[in-house]
Amino acid sequence: MKLLKEKIISDGQVLEGNILKVDSFLNHQIDVQLLLEIGKEFKNRFSNEKVTKILTVEASGISVATVTAMNFSVPVIFAKKGESKNQDDEAYECEAFSFTRNKSYIMKVSKKYLSKDDSVIIIDDFLANGEACKAMIDIATQAGTKIVGIGIVIEKSFQSGRKKIEDLGYKVESLARIKSMKNNKIQFV
Amino acid sequence: MKLLKEKIISDGQVLEGNILKVDSFLNHQIDVQLLLEIGKEFKNRFSNEKVTKILTVEASGISVATVTAMNFSVPVIFAKKGESKNQDDEAYECEAFSFTRNKSYIMKVSKKYLSKDDSVIIIDDFLANGEACKAMIDIATQAGTKIVGIGIVIEKSFQSGRKKIEDLGYKVESLARIKSMKNNKIQFV
Repeated sequence: MKLLKEKIISDGQVLEGNILKVDSFLNHQIDVQLLLEIGKEFKNRFSNEKVTKILTVEASGISVATVTAMNFSVPVIFAKKGESKNQDDEAYECEAFSFTRNKSYIMKVSKKYLSKDDSVIIIDDFLANGEACKAMIDIATQAGTKIVGIGIVIEKSFQSGRKKIEDLGYKVESLARIKSMKNNKIQFV
Repeated sequence: MKLLKEKIISDGQVLEGNILKVDSFLNHQIDVQLLLEIGKEFKNRFSNEKVTKILTVEASGISVATVTAMNFSVPVIFAKKGESKNQDDEAYECEAFSFTRNKSYIMKVSKKYLSKDDSVIIIDDFLANGEACKAMIDIATQAGTKIVGIGIVIEKSFQSGRKKIEDLGYKVESLARIKSMKNNKIQFV
């Protein structure tokens, strides 16, 4: 997606440890004009699919998932992050490790909102090691929900996330795929 | 806002401790048709104002703030929640207490994204005790940013939040104001 790549080049910041900071337009301050284009692009990428819901995880995925859901006219579900497992039986849960925060968390979705009758696109702002994405796949699988595919805004293609997800048999559509950030220079696939 | 009130009556659940559960359409699963109407309604309520950004806090405020920002064609900023104060000087920070989680957290906004040239509407899904809202006001005030007003989806008018915000001198626009939830019966102001 040309507009997104241009924005990453002009406004993204490469920090030590292969961190790409895009908090001026995607995950702290959000450029809503760009966001609307991102929503349309995901609709194009999955235009032939039957989709009943969009699944994401708080917090940065929510705005992207919301505009995508608008394009499909379906609800969004955002998985919640918690520190401990529920005692009750009301939620699908999966543990995931956050490399950004260097700790594990429990991802949860209420059993009321995902079922075997649903077909979801899983949306997230970043794909790096694939931990969050794999947890969402796990939750959808627990619910018996069909996973139409995975939609990612920015993929760090030099990390293992895409391979892990493809090895599970799912289609990954990333709007910008970054091959390298060496010497602070962003190169796309 | 009639559509919202009808949705609260039909799909909201009153739980013990004055908790109103609206996770089927607002803060876990999100009804995007309703959300689009909410965005339009906030635009109507603040139609005469100059607005440069919409300010909210993760996670449940993000989708509401995003559709509101679309209607004003301005960026969204969502404040982040952390456990500790930053060592650096890059963010405006304010401590807030969460009654839902029964603990305090630090709300943060990067200094890059709010300034004295900005005029913001502060948006949130709920107003109860006003803690999150007061923290956002504090952050905007630190930045010298003009606060146009506060936009709330659901206000628990039997709690102290509105009074606290109005006492600070700000206009509060709530799309549904709940007077009472006694005996599981929701009554609006």
